[in-house]
Amino acid sequence: MIQKYNAVVGQSGGPTAAINATLSGVVRGLRESGRVDKLFGMRNGVEGLLEGRTVDLFSLLPDEESLKLLEQTPAAALGSCRKRLPEPDDNEGSVVYDAIFGFLHQNNIKYFLYIGGNDSMDTVLKLDRAARIRGIDVSFIGVPKTIDNDLCATDHTPGYGSAAKYVACAMKEICRDCSVYTKKAVTIVEIMGRDAGWLTAAAALPSLYGDETCDLCYLPEVGFDEDSFVEKILKIQKHKPYVVVAVSEGLVDAGGKLIGEQAQSGAVDVFGHGYFSGTAHVLEDLVRNRIGCKVRSVEINILQRCAAHILSKCDIDESVAVGRYAALSALSGESGKMASFVRRKTRDYCSDLVLADIAEVANNSHYVPREYISEDGSFVTRECLEYIKPLIDGEVETVFENGLPKHFVIS
Amino acid sequence: MIQKYNAVVGQSGGPTAAINATLSGVVRGLRESGRVDKLFGMRNGVEGLLEGRTVDLFSLLPDEESLKLLEQTPAAALGSCRKRLPEPDDNEGSVVYDAIFGFLHQNNIKYFLYIGGNDSMDTVLKLDRAARIRGIDVSFIGVPKTIDNDLCATDHTPGYGSAAKYVACAMKEICRDCSVYTKKAVTIVEIMGRDAGWLTAAAALPSLYGDETCDLCYLPEVGFDEDSFVEKILKIQKHKPYVVVAVSEGLVDAGGKLIGEQAQSGAVDVFGHGYFSGTAHVLEDLVRNRIGCKVRSVEINILQRCAAHILSKCDIDESVAVGRYAALSALSGESGKMASFVRRKTRDYCSDLVLADIAEVANNSHYVPREYISEDGSFVTRECLEYIKPLIDGEVETVFENGLPKHFVIS
Repeated sequence: MIQKYNAVVGQSGGPTAAINATLSGVVRGLRESGRVDKLFGMRNGVEGLLEGRTVDLFSLLPDEESLKLLEQTPAAALGSCRKRLPEPDDNEGSVVYDAIFGFLHQNNIKYFLYIGGNDSMDTVLKLDRAARIRGIDVSFIGVPKTIDNDLCATDHTPGYGSAAKYVACAMKEICRDCSVYTKKAVTIVEIMGRDAGWLTAAAALPSLYGDETCDLCYLPEVGFDEDSFVEKILKIQKHKPYVVVAVSEGLVDAGGKLIGEQAQSGAVDVFGHGYFSGTAHVLEDLVRNRIGCKVRSVEINILQRCAAHILSKCDIDESVAVGRYAALSALSGESGKMASFVRRKTRDYCSDLVLADIAEVANNSHYVPREYISEDGSFVTRECLEYIKPLIDGEVETVFENGLPKHFVIS
Repeated sequence: MIQKYNAVVGQSGGPTAAINATLSGVVRGLRESGRVDKLFGMRNGVEGLLEGRTVDLFSLLPDEESLKLLEQTPAAALGSCRKRLPEPDDNEGSVVYDAIFGFLHQNNIKYFLYIGGNDSMDTVLKLDRAARIRGIDVSFIGVPKTIDNDLCATDHTPGYGSAAKYVACAMKEICRDCSVYTKKAVTIVEIMGRDAGWLTAAAALPSLYGDETCDLCYLPEVGFDEDSFVEKILKIQKHKPYVVVAVSEGLVDAGGKLIGEQAQSGAVDVFGHGYFSGTAHVLEDLVRNRIGCKVRSVEINILQRCAAHILSKCDIDESVAVGRYAALSALSGESGKMASFVRRKTRDYCSDLVLADIAEVANNSHYVPREYISEDGSFVTRECLEYIKPLIDGEVETVFENGLPKHFVIS
């Protein structure tokens, strides 16, 4: 007879429209295995775990209906946190690890799954190391998520496809909206992406099919040049009245200074990341001062990471699959790894799930490669769009109630 | 044998997600009647008509497939304008009317349909009056549209239902997004509505079903009080960490001064309307200064008027119906009227189409009645939400191509 243990799962970092689909995958995988008695859900990640705040996920998600609903609910159903764990070999931090390992021991937990971005992978890495130091036999597995698509050691991240689909769809719609007047106007659309421009690149996707989209697309990977920007707009205005520009929130100038910094304070979060915003506003002023035509800025803001009413089927299917795969990896005794995607070199898109070394992932970023960006930095290449294309594929049939998408909420 | 004439249709004012469905209704009505040879489409409303820029709509929209695609395309497919016609009895303005009536006469046009908001109804009113003065026998019929729902003499306006559905959906999603952290935070969401708060009121809709949505909802119809606002937030923060506030862009203080004015220039459009924006930013600063917790502002911006990927079926069906009804009204010789909705006093929602006197509509606004707003002005009443509820009902099956909604574009 196989010995049964318990498991715990948490969500961490910024919300995405697919992080709950991954949670559903974890629940599905562990339940199907028949090897886990109880699945604890940490409320607000390790922050809640340290306070003993957990829920019983097998009870909360008893059937297919509840799991399906969870899969179409945006943001972290369990809540999230941005807690940074101390160094595993740091004496002062041992109280934190003692508390976490104490909880796991008391509750007979042998499988620890954590869904998040690179900061969350840092948490998994440290827990794995701290457990090894203490000789504790628990499997720590990370499961990726982030709309930014900036994790290393994976072809792409769950959550990116749905956010990219929303951004590309919104850009098509914004272009329709901007096209109605004959007066010269510039619309600057700011898209999320602190260091990596993957999500901004998705704004250009409709161009792959000859559909109208942004005329210019600026990523944070290439230094932004004001003169060239103004020149390009003036050139486009010679043959059409409206110009639509997609820009990353993290856009920097040639010297690496944030364009949006002029409009923001220097505040940083607990991971040392600055709060960025206002890039589009700065460029709006630039156009107003240098060109003088009508200009407006649109920040898609948090709508792009929580728009679960237009999910990518590829993304949601993969998000569930990676959760299930991570669960099975934990059961098989793996630890200190992140479930990850490898894209096959086939004509039609196909991906495989593998385990990546979490040390490769934690605190690293995967940027848009230079060859995915046009030489002058004002657009992305066809190769880049071909990479993004399959990730937004297909639509999820959303369950509506009273005219609105139905959500799964843990009260 | 019935004498056949030609018809012309134009779109004017700000884009909506349903104005093309109304255009489709006009095309359907006129084609089905068999009484119109050619349907001219004005590019950019009367502005394009004056320059002779028209298209042949029966040719551009030959079949059900093209009409269905048009019905799911946001913004004005024909283009729009914000041209204000001179007074009909003004001598200096006669050159404009001579040009328009000349075009109609040359092209054997007897039916003139114009889809737009109250400024566009002003255009229809003036054309009707100018034609009467000159003894010209052409039917001028207005067809309503506006996401603002602020037209008089109609129960509601096409375009409002889809925008309201998007806003309510976005609010549910934003609440999910905001709920993930335990740290106190205020999110202020700015919604369109220059003078009328109908669209902002839709943000509160999920509360009708016990679903989470904005905690506070401020409309421009009631003077905004800073102290009461701060007090209310502090009170909510006693039992939950995140507070979500919906505010109209046109929010004013007790003295009638725009809250957003501090952040905007005093520029006005050709109709004398000011450009408003920045209300949420002003309130963001207020919360930062008076409460000191984390605070963020989200402007839904143009996304709310062009989000055709989540249309209200009720809205789109009615938008087609009102276009068709307007077309038939023109054919029957009516003029100087606007097609309008009357809601039946039945338990289940049902509306009838009637003709309203356009003089009642032009340059007037229909505000949210005081009894639809809570006494302290911080939310809307159940009666208000019951009014909005049926208008967002049902979903349109959107045609996707390459993972994105397909649009109908006149190149």
